[in-house]
Amino acid sequence: MGPILITIITGILALVVAAFMAAYVLKQDQGSAKVREISAAIKEGALAFLGREYKILAVFVAVVAIALGVLPNLGWLVSAAFVFGAVCSGLAGYIGMSIAIRANSRTAAAAQKSLNHGLRVSFRGGAVMGMCVVGIGILGLSILYLVFHSNPNFLFIIPGYGFGASSVAIFARVGGGIFTKAADTGADIVGKVEKGIPEDDPRNAAVIADFVGDNVGDVAGMGADLFESYVDSIIATMTLGMIAVFSVTVGKSLVPNEATAWFLPMLVAAGGIIASIIGIFLVRVGNKPEMSALLNALRRGTFSASILTAIFAFLAVYLLKADIGIFWAILAGLIAGVLIGESTNFFTSYVYKPTLNIAKSSQTGGATLITTGFANGLMSTIPPIILVVIAILVAHRFADIYGVAIAGIGMLSTLGIQDATDAYGPVADNAGGIVEMSDLPPEVRERTDALDSLGNTTAATGKGFAIGAAGLTALALLLAYTQAAAIKLADINLLDPPVIAGIFLGVMLPAIFCAMTLNAVGKTSFSIINEVRRQFREIKGLMEGTAKPDYSKSVTICTTSALKQMIAPGLITIISPVIVGIVLGPLALAGFLVGAIACGFILAVTFANAGGSWDNAKKWIETGAFGGKGSDAHKAAVIGDTVGDPMKDTAGPSLNIMIKLMSIVSLVMAPVFIGFSGLL
Amino acid sequence: MGPILITIITGILALVVAAFMAAYVLKQDQGSAKVREISAAIKEGALAFLGREYKILAVFVAVVAIALGVLPNLGWLVSAAFVFGAVCSGLAGYIGMSIAIRANSRTAAAAQKSLNHGLRVSFRGGAVMGMCVVGIGILGLSILYLVFHSNPNFLFIIPGYGFGASSVAIFARVGGGIFTKAADTGADIVGKVEKGIPEDDPRNAAVIADFVGDNVGDVAGMGADLFESYVDSIIATMTLGMIAVFSVTVGKSLVPNEATAWFLPMLVAAGGIIASIIGIFLVRVGNKPEMSALLNALRRGTFSASILTAIFAFLAVYLLKADIGIFWAILAGLIAGVLIGESTNFFTSYVYKPTLNIAKSSQTGGATLITTGFANGLMSTIPPIILVVIAILVAHRFADIYGVAIAGIGMLSTLGIQDATDAYGPVADNAGGIVEMSDLPPEVRERTDALDSLGNTTAATGKGFAIGAAGLTALALLLAYTQAAAIKLADINLLDPPVIAGIFLGVMLPAIFCAMTLNAVGKTSFSIINEVRRQFREIKGLMEGTAKPDYSKSVTICTTSALKQMIAPGLITIISPVIVGIVLGPLALAGFLVGAIACGFILAVTFANAGGSWDNAKKWIETGAFGGKGSDAHKAAVIGDTVGDPMKDTAGPSLNIMIKLMSIVSLVMAPVFIGFSGLL
Repeated sequence: MGPILITIITGILALVVAAFMAAYVLKQDQGSAKVREISAAIKEGALAFLGREYKILAVFVAVVAIALGVLPNLGWLVSAAFVFGAVCSGLAGYIGMSIAIRANSRTAAAAQKSLNHGLRVSFRGGAVMGMCVVGIGILGLSILYLVFHSNPNFLFIIPGYGFGASSVAIFARVGGGIFTKAADTGADIVGKVEKGIPEDDPRNAAVIADFVGDNVGDVAGMGADLFESYVDSIIATMTLGMIAVFSVTVGKSLVPNEATAWFLPMLVAAGGIIASIIGIFLVRVGNKPEMSALLNALRRGTFSASILTAIFAFLAVYLLKADIGIFWAILAGLIAGVLIGESTNFFTSYVYKPTLNIAKSSQTGGATLITTGFANGLMSTIPPIILVVIAILVAHRFADIYGVAIAGIGMLSTLGIQDATDAYGPVADNAGGIVEMSDLPPEVRERTDALDSLGNTTAATGKGFAIGAAGLTALALLLAYTQAAAIKLADINLLDPPVIAGIFLGVMLPAIFCAMTLNAVGKTSFSIINEVRRQFREIKGLMEGTAKPDYSKSVTICTTSALKQMIAPGLITIISPVIVGIVLGPLALAGFLVGAIACGFILAVTFANAGGSWDNAKKWIETGAFGGKGSDAHKAAVIGDTVGDPMKDTAGPSLNIMIKLMSIVSLVMAPVFIGFSGLL
Repeated sequence: MGPILITIITGILALVVAAFMAAYVLKQDQGSAKVREISAAIKEGALAFLGREYKILAVFVAVVAIALGVLPNLGWLVSAAFVFGAVCSGLAGYIGMSIAIRANSRTAAAAQKSLNHGLRVSFRGGAVMGMCVVGIGILGLSILYLVFHSNPNFLFIIPGYGFGASSVAIFARVGGGIFTKAADTGADIVGKVEKGIPEDDPRNAAVIADFVGDNVGDVAGMGADLFESYVDSIIATMTLGMIAVFSVTVGKSLVPNEATAWFLPMLVAAGGIIASIIGIFLVRVGNKPEMSALLNALRRGTFSASILTAIFAFLAVYLLKADIGIFWAILAGLIAGVLIGESTNFFTSYVYKPTLNIAKSSQTGGATLITTGFANGLMSTIPPIILVVIAILVAHRFADIYGVAIAGIGMLSTLGIQDATDAYGPVADNAGGIVEMSDLPPEVRERTDALDSLGNTTAATGKGFAIGAAGLTALALLLAYTQAAAIKLADINLLDPPVIAGIFLGVMLPAIFCAMTLNAVGKTSFSIINEVRRQFREIKGLMEGTAKPDYSKSVTICTTSALKQMIAPGLITIISPVIVGIVLGPLALAGFLVGAIACGFILAVTFANAGGSWDNAKKWIETGAFGGKGSDAHKAAVIGDTVGDPMKDTAGPSLNIMIKLMSIVSLVMAPVFIGFSGLL
């Protein structure tokens, strides 16, 4: 059986599993009329957002496709790959979210029966997204191979696919991220802070928008993000592998022939898919479900998948007769990914000292809590940086720069189950909200709260993993860019002033990007807040519960504003590497990418962990510490949580995409830069 | 007249001006008995802090001196230069602060007569520090030349002087910075927030500690910081110049001979001193003083100094027969420095949109205000980065890497007047506090408020300037390091995995450093808050004003805690480049420094401007906007201000020193690294 057959069969298998999970979810009880009504409102809002987002994306994709088609050294085949990548990513996001918005009400209904039942429905709802991402990702690449592999420019065509996926990702992540956090913040500030009504209270006009946000941001946005990482890491490794075959400078003949160069990354990824499927089916709890049992169930799934992936990767290396050093590089990436996830847990869970210290600092008010939390975020960069550095050095020692690229695939290979775990969180969160709004018994809310809380823990780990993977992937793309642009590595001199200039500019870009996304959340939530306040003021009987708020108005405001605000940060990301490459030259562009990757990594980790630890410090206080809910300490913690939300769910995760997107734009543009040395 | 004579005479002239200013300040009226009493308490606290700080520093200096003495390729002469640098920096800080703590009461008394009189006393009080820094700096370097210039290892001895200055700077800046912000935050949180008493109220036990902090942090700490930048930039340029003379790789014979290499940086600096002295005497206002007149007076001083510096620099280049390209490099640095300062003003003054937007966001609470302000800080990195990049590219185009180094001197040459302006701020701030505590008439407080407010504006500009200068200086030191370690620039390959690893680790270091300093402020202010609360609880009649608080207890607690907390961040900064150099090798160390400089620069700008804009957003609301003092908007703004304080006055400014210190440690260690390639 040829390797291409294996990858195609694996991709189809992933989609079959997705269909099985989707069928399981869809045949569940949809709950009471009230539950259905709320779920329908969420569905309507989420689909309306995605529809409008995709319309904007279609215009963008069309413009870029034409540009790629007419550019010298690129052409229409690159355009075609680009469009194909964008469509694949959009499709994965659409299918995954379609199921997630149907799984929420069913999870609420299932939680009325038992916690275990609730976990199964919500986790399987999330697993659809995970399986779609990896299945569509690998099938798309396989199709690209079948169509284009005899084309001499094949090497320059594949990156177009990644560029398409990355473009969809940045807009989906930024747009969805702005939506979700603006709605969340808006709902909280007017509801919890000003009016003193509980979270998810049906009188709050922004509450449906908040639920919609979970789906468009944390399901569709996250899916596009991971789809991007997945295909980009494979593409980067392929490019480096192909160049290793044709030249002697890279990889020191680690890769024996063209077939290996092409199939090794694909087979390692395929092994990861099989391992993830097995892992997903291992996620189950017994009859006496407790929090620790839930967490252990998920961990059993991911750890098993990691071990199996390592075994499959070894087989792939062995069967394709590649150098065994490559296996060690894959293993280095895989282990680093798992450990980065765990370290995130230490810095954000209230079981450990860092978050407890933040909670303690709430006693002296919101300001000290902010400072302590931000310091914690900065400090939490130590383990991920050290682990990535070790992974790079180990991978390089065993398999040269090819090793650095394939270490990224190692880290990402268990993505099927990682994404399932990530997408499970918002489904559980939505279910909890629906339960709250539907006057279901308190024990049901307790169960959905347990599921939601588990989702927060896995989200923190998942974020750490996503950042680590993004860092390695972007680095691999950068290496591939230099090779594709025919730059000798020895020519990129760190202390060449254009390179230093590139590094400084590169370091600046994530900062600007974050400023724009944070401001976007601020602006959008400002309009939501005013709308919710207006409804409380103008709709008579709303506060008393005799009248209903106009949910769809809030959703529309949020949609319009979020989509408007996502454009500038997205465009800046795509255009800036092109400008740097043209003005300062392709060598400076390498410096620019290194600066952006390093700074983006640091900011992403800081934002994710500061945000996560503020969130959990608040949760710790809500368990009764320092006066519990309603105390001054709690008020301080709410400020921290609100500051952290756009950091951890909008700006931080978008940075992952940003650094990959800038790198893949450079890779796509590489043929244009060959022999060019910049205007300056 | 030989150049060395010029530099010595200029140095002496600066000290004569300092003595003149000091004599002027000391002969002023010391004010009422009450004013004297408060001033005496501040003096006592500040001197006690400095005394204990210097004791700790003495131990540190002794240990490092021994280490340098016994290290291979370094030796006791390097030790001697190191000790000499430390003593010079300590002396400049001591003299400057001694006058500042005497100028505060006299400014308070002078403000009773007129605003103009108050400005003159406070500005001349600050000018003593400015003149001492540049005078002692250049005299120290001249003495080093006279003693060592015939020694063959001369080139390796000079950096020891800078290392000594940098070591004192990091501890003084971090220790003083922790003290000042912990006392400030502690006083505000218990006084303004909890007890609702005004700022600087005598019933607040932390109020004297707060005044002491202004002196030890913003006068002594800032002085040490700028002393470091000043001598380090000269040393870096000298080293590069000397190497340019002896080799052909650097500078393409821009520097004709050894004398030019040595004297050009010194003479440019000397020209800047003369220009600064003239500028200082131009700072005066007419009989109808308004805010804009005050600001114009200071601006007239600094702008005149900049123009004169450019003229003197041209003369120096011409007389020493150096390449005219060097003049353009100096000019690029000088102009970039001025513009960076101005851009800071745009992002932090409430005359402009960014700060007004932050004030506006206070309407939706503390959380949105924090997010908007932080985004503003991130966005404000654009002008400094672009300006530094342009300065680097221009300087390099006209004078190779030697140009990059001397551009740093260009930026720093007006330091005499810049530091005078910076040190003026805390004197005016102290004077305002003393007026508040001494029951002087409200119009006197209005005058000191005007002086204080002017000080805040100049402080923001000064911070921008200091950051830009630190970035260029650190870069120059890095270039000097590579040359001193006999590394060919072409050997430092950006994408070499150890270099990439170095960059990632380097980017991480400023993040950790900030986390440590922010936490240190948090811990120290926590103890102050508890002490002030305790005094309000236990001292009967304190709130009613019939009993006095125990000021010295708060000062002691603050001193002990700040000095304890300053050690770890200081040591990490000194040790980390040594470890990276030994483990990953001297090439990776270059990557490490680039990463640290770039990330440190971004964080320093972000912290300085976010902090500055929160501060001024609060001040804007206090003028009556959005409900004015006491409104919910104001409460939100106070949170922002409190978050920003340790960022802008502790963590941010310390980063400047950090990146220079790491670079000069590398330069000092360069002879040890020659021919060494790392343990890994």
